[in-house]
Amino acid sequence: MLNTRKICVVVGSRANYSSIKSALIAIKHHQTLTLQLVVTASALLDRFGAVVDLMRADGFQADAEVFSLIEGETPETMAKSTGLGLLELPTVFSRLKPDFVVTIGDRFETMATTLAAAYMNIPVAHTMGGEVSGTIDESIRHAVTKFAHVHFPASEDARERIIKLGEVPEDVHMVGCPRIDLVAEILEKDKGTAELANELFTAGVGDVIDLDKPFILVSQHPVTTEYGEGERQIRATLEAVSESGLPAIVLWPNADAGSDDISRGIRKWREQGHGKNMHFFKNLPIDVYVRLMKRTSCIVGNSSSGLRDGAFIGTPCVNLGSRQTTRERGSNVLEVPAEREAILQAVKQQVAHGPYQRDTIYGDGNAGKRIAEVLATKTVNVQKRITY
Amino acid sequence: MLNTRKICVVVGSRANYSSIKSALIAIKHHQTLTLQLVVTASALLDRFGAVVDLMRADGFQADAEVFSLIEGETPETMAKSTGLGLLELPTVFSRLKPDFVVTIGDRFETMATTLAAAYMNIPVAHTMGGEVSGTIDESIRHAVTKFAHVHFPASEDARERIIKLGEVPEDVHMVGCPRIDLVAEILEKDKGTAELANELFTAGVGDVIDLDKPFILVSQHPVTTEYGEGERQIRATLEAVSESGLPAIVLWPNADAGSDDISRGIRKWREQGHGKNMHFFKNLPIDVYVRLMKRTSCIVGNSSSGLRDGAFIGTPCVNLGSRQTTRERGSNVLEVPAEREAILQAVKQQVAHGPYQRDTIYGDGNAGKRIAEVLATKTVNVQKRITY
Amino acid sequence: MLNTRKICVVVGSRANYSSIKSALIAIKHHQTLTLQLVVTASALLDRFGAVVDLMRADGFQADAEVFSLIEGETPETMAKSTGLGLLELPTVFSRLKPDFVVTIGDRFETMATTLAAAYMNIPVAHTMGGEVSGTIDESIRHAVTKFAHVHFPASEDARERIIKLGEVPEDVHMVGCPRIDLVAEILEKDKGTAELANELFTAGVGDVIDLDKPFILVSQHPVTTEYGEGERQIRATLEAVSESGLPAIVLWPNADAGSDDISRGIRKWREQGHGKNMHFFKNLPIDVYVRLMKRTSCIVGNSSSGLRDGAFIGTPCVNLGSRQTTRERGSNVLEVPAEREAILQAVKQQVAHGPYQRDTIYGDGNAGKRIAEVLATKTVNVQKRITY
Amino acid sequence: MLNTRKICVVVGSRANYSSIKSALIAIKHHQTLTLQLVVTASALLDRFGAVVDLMRADGFQADAEVFSLIEGETPETMAKSTGLGLLELPTVFSRLKPDFVVTIGDRFETMATTLAAAYMNIPVAHTMGGEVSGTIDESIRHAVTKFAHVHFPASEDARERIIKLGEVPEDVHMVGCPRIDLVAEILEKDKGTAELANELFTAGVGDVIDLDKPFILVSQHPVTTEYGEGERQIRATLEAVSESGLPAIVLWPNADAGSDDISRGIRKWREQGHGKNMHFFKNLPIDVYVRLMKRTSCIVGNSSSGLRDGAFIGTPCVNLGSRQTTRERGSNVLEVPAEREAILQAVKQQVAHGPYQRDTIYGDGNAGKRIAEVLATKTVNVQKRITY
Repeated sequence: MLNTRKICVVVGSRANYSSIKSALIAIKHHQTLTLQLVVTASALLDRFGAVVDLMRADGFQADAEVFSLIEGETPETMAKSTGLGLLELPTVFSRLKPDFVVTIGDRFETMATTLAAAYMNIPVAHTMGGEVSGTIDESIRHAVTKFAHVHFPASEDARERIIKLGEVPEDVHMVGCPRIDLVAEILEKDKGTAELANELFTAGVGDVIDLDKPFILVSQHPVTTEYGEGERQIRATLEAVSESGLPAIVLWPNADAGSDDISRGIRKWREQGHGKNMHFFKNLPIDVYVRLMKRTSCIVGNSSSGLRDGAFIGTPCVNLGSRQTTRERGSNVLEVPAEREAILQAVKQQVAHGPYQRDTIYGDGNAGKRIAEVLATKTVNVQKRITY
Repeated sequence: MLNTRKICVVVGSRANYSSIKSALIAIKHHQTLTLQLVVTASALLDRFGAVVDLMRADGFQADAEVFSLIEGETPETMAKSTGLGLLELPTVFSRLKPDFVVTIGDRFETMATTLAAAYMNIPVAHTMGGEVSGTIDESIRHAVTKFAHVHFPASEDARERIIKLGEVPEDVHMVGCPRIDLVAEILEKDKGTAELANELFTAGVGDVIDLDKPFILVSQHPVTTEYGEGERQIRATLEAVSESGLPAIVLWPNADAGSDDISRGIRKWREQGHGKNMHFFKNLPIDVYVRLMKRTSCIVGNSSSGLRDGAFIGTPCVNLGSRQTTRERGSNVLEVPAEREAILQAVKQQVAHGPYQRDTIYGDGNAGKRIAEVLATKTVNVQKRITY
Repeated sequence: MLNTRKICVVVGSRANYSSIKSALIAIKHHQTLTLQLVVTASALLDRFGAVVDLMRADGFQADAEVFSLIEGETPETMAKSTGLGLLELPTVFSRLKPDFVVTIGDRFETMATTLAAAYMNIPVAHTMGGEVSGTIDESIRHAVTKFAHVHFPASEDARERIIKLGEVPEDVHMVGCPRIDLVAEILEKDKGTAELANELFTAGVGDVIDLDKPFILVSQHPVTTEYGEGERQIRATLEAVSESGLPAIVLWPNADAGSDDISRGIRKWREQGHGKNMHFFKNLPIDVYVRLMKRTSCIVGNSSSGLRDGAFIGTPCVNLGSRQTTRERGSNVLEVPAEREAILQAVKQQVAHGPYQRDTIYGDGNAGKRIAEVLATKTVNVQKRITY
Repeated sequence: MLNTRKICVVVGSRANYSSIKSALIAIKHHQTLTLQLVVTASALLDRFGAVVDLMRADGFQADAEVFSLIEGETPETMAKSTGLGLLELPTVFSRLKPDFVVTIGDRFETMATTLAAAYMNIPVAHTMGGEVSGTIDESIRHAVTKFAHVHFPASEDARERIIKLGEVPEDVHMVGCPRIDLVAEILEKDKGTAELANELFTAGVGDVIDLDKPFILVSQHPVTTEYGEGERQIRATLEAVSESGLPAIVLWPNADAGSDDISRGIRKWREQGHGKNMHFFKNLPIDVYVRLMKRTSCIVGNSSSGLRDGAFIGTPCVNLGSRQTTRERGSNVLEVPAEREAILQAVKQQVAHGPYQRDTIYGDGNAGKRIAEVLATKTVNVQKRITY
């Protein structure tokens, strides 16, 4: 009988799932690995699209479900939710006894996962470290790097930054972003606009948009260090989009502190009757989202997908404010402040430009397999030591 | 009326207190600063010497007491205790609304304090960052650095390491270790061995030791990444000390995972009747401890005080195992594995050598005042950004 | 200077607030009482109508806000939310040092409040004990009685039941329900249907209803011991109401386990286009609600307001399923199972009957003042003892 | 294959274990029952005798270990520890999916266990309900009764009280106390004083006591409603015992709020050199304890064992203060206030009287089997309803 390693992956959000799905598949099918799946935070909740149900439909059964979000969505409850996660996850790890815990990106639950595993002397593997962005994510990401035993950066630039942070180069494996694996697969299977429209407009609220004509995609999240600004920021975006004259597909925000603010901004916008030519979605399956990214004249907001998926797909992107400030980006991105006029001008410029060339800075479509292979063979020393 | 800044200091252990006391004094007496004091973790507990009572006796009243330790002292409960701290501290910060939160060193409660403050957009000042050591402290320390907005390293070497970690050089203030401020003051006020003996032997259990003759000081803590090894390790030390023929003063361990292990080792040693010529203390006031450090022929164990206070005092030190592995050290330190024979030889060598010269690598005695001054004038940007 | 008593009232939901508001007023204005207000659970949350904002508008400032709901709304998260409340409330009580803690009714946060206070040796006053109902509320209510030191039942029947439970008769003060105080006041100030309609239809979604013609009011909550049944149950109600041919005003459910179920049922109903002649509200201010109760041809569902307010107002009520099974009721209530046909027939019967006579079984409008007076003068023994 | 029921028993203390052990055996060996064991609170901790290790030695493996005690032992931390238990236990019940949860007696963890199970719609069986005592235990016990679906009172008096509390008589099964099952078994196997002395004096500290001559047994716990009084109370007892001239065996207290107080009292007593003719134990295995009960001239303190085991064994008992105030008792008990002189006179009277006759008010030795049999066959309705 083969001696297998237990790889415990903790998924805490919709974005987490698409950022790790191809690795989950690769781990599940790897001969010497056993996948252990923990679903937590917003990934469990109906109002964030019940990601756990999507996962089950994809064949991934959770070994543990950890409800960790304390309602309120203030900075105080975000901190406490991390604390709650840290109370809960050790119970799970103690039961599953994994050989590696995989923690994804830079969210609050990423921190809780990392601390729980590291404090319990379980080796931590971290995906998407070494990048630079705005908000508290920036600190979380680098702090997680300082606890992680194996690093899976998504870009060359990120790999170098992790090494500068004092990590042992042999433990830093540049694999690309697993989300790009999915993007590539979705683009291949795309069956045309009519089918996409069929799938799309069974859900959400608002006007139906003609996907064969130019349209805008809006995806805007709160900036945790600018707590209280969200309502004004989304308003500026919606006004600019409206003034551009193009129809738009608008997504509701994620669960960070301040999301209530943005939700309120969207709600008021609709209640005041400005929602013409717009369709609103609580969330979209990634395969729908990617196909929209391929067709939209321009994505507007501050979602990292504009930079990451956008580079691979070639989507014109208008990126707002400080949330992604220094994340690596391709030529498809225009950077503007979260002000109506600036947004409007940038949108016009991008619409005029049209699609960009493919750029593989965030991966070539094989990240998941590389991650599985490293986890199957890697030897780590639980006692970390800075290199300088 | 002066516009004052509220400086909230979180003290979680006996060691924390002596590492920050001179800064507490300086903050309290600073014209434009208001001290807010939070006492938590083992600093509240009788069985770790009720540090909160010592603080009160020194004139420091707690603005909040946060019980955060979950009994058990396993890696799992250490992780959960951090989670509990993270559930509790936001309530406190939300009430006190500090302008800065000061977090000390590299303990579990240091991490909880840092996350709570950073997630709530409160600027974090961190003391004793940038050092290198063994155990999970190593990761905690550097991770805290990645969240902190102002850094107060205790040595030049540490200052450089913080900058290498991508922190803005202007935010890194080399001030020395505030604990050395206390050490300097205690050495000045020392009134001789007779008085010290009087203070000392009213507490603890075991034989009375003649402090005018050579004696050994033992201070050994668990190594969290070597969980389960503690009993064997303390046994090796006690055997070596016993075989050296010198009397010894032995301290009980702190509250990290594994301290039960070491406590059991000491208890068994005593119950088996090996405790001759030894005196055991649950903990010692720092002023007693420093005066012992000045007189002991050799300190044995893995306490950081052997390296830090020891450098300034000139105490011969035998440092065991991995806990302090790469912490900066002066010439007073001999490094050996936690094995009986190795310890014995090193002890003999140090006893033969006698006291060392003063070394100020960890500070010159003015750290506390420097910290208060920076906190009174510093402007920080809550949104951090790595420098590379 | 007068020696005042500190009365700490913990409000955890919209229903809580209207059940205690007149007592809050009386306590606030009492010469020898100081009101301390703690707002927690769903009373803090936007999606349950931000009761804390209503309270502020009414002049009640929270001395502490305790976020205690863990998202998920499963039986597991309801239990854990109680645990979280029990972790948080002692911090608050320890700071406020109340002479009495007032706990309301029979909700999860009522239990947490009660345990926190009783364990800390703070006298507990309990309102609305001694009643009989379905769901876990039944056990919570009687268990709280066994911890409470002073009882404020809302009806004579309830008073007798508390005494049978072994409580000392002198500690049981029949005061009536404070909610009826509000109801009486609102009915007095009612300015006519036109004004009500103006206030009403600025919020909610759906068709506008003519309040001068017969209409139905629907208020249906989950039954925690029938977890998973909610969607079917609300569907049965909506179908029956639709078939009755009368327009309807429909309220979203509270935050108990299973509310997601009912919300989904309502959502689907609307998405399938059955929402004609219906208007949906997340929640209504009590003054609007009472005026609707006065005008509706029939209230349908399982809200206790149908029984309690309904008795005083004389509202025809169709009460469904097990949630209120054995709560005391007046002649205005028809009891039916949660099945479409049964509901339909009962609705028809009540519409034909028209308004009922006033019944004061749940109070005469002076409960709040009586509560304040008892709290101002009562002496309690913290050590309880059963009477038999 | 037989269809078996899963019976989940939650053990939280040393006393819990001996109060349920015979039922654990009976459940384990029952053909249609599967035992699920959860160990929590002080039962997991070294400093309370690591009951979990005793259980393992007896063949009971824990299915889950739940660390739930927050250090501090103040009323505030006791409340919070209950909250922590309530955060943790739902995770366990959700995994084990028991058909019944068995909760024992009247401790803080009993409440947490009960709430977790009841809120999750799992039938609750409660042992030792219906009794009357002092402290917060009194309220906890009756509150648990109001949540429990099956009751296992230990005495006839208790059975009647549960029914008066409004419980359905068919759900109240008078079985006797399972602890008496153990007592009976231990008395049968007793091999004489020499062997007992051998087992006894390998542990503890202090003078060796001659068990063939008259000696006193002291077992005193904190009274949670008299927080802060513990040190004075234990001092009064120790002085009285000392003055009686008889040697004594003294036990350390349990983990309730105030135990630090009593521990400090004992510690000071010893440090002041009054410990002559006394031997101190952290805790004793029940089989040793029962054999001491059989031989002691008098047990002094406020442990329930003096009343319960004492009745069956016939041990002269001096019961102090309010902790057991109205618990049912046999003729072997003298009740006195916690004052030195009163204790001294009562001790003299009991020593003069000598052993009492066996009294089976707390059971005949078959409780465990009766409990298992009821759990194997009982049908319960999760929705409880008071009987009046």
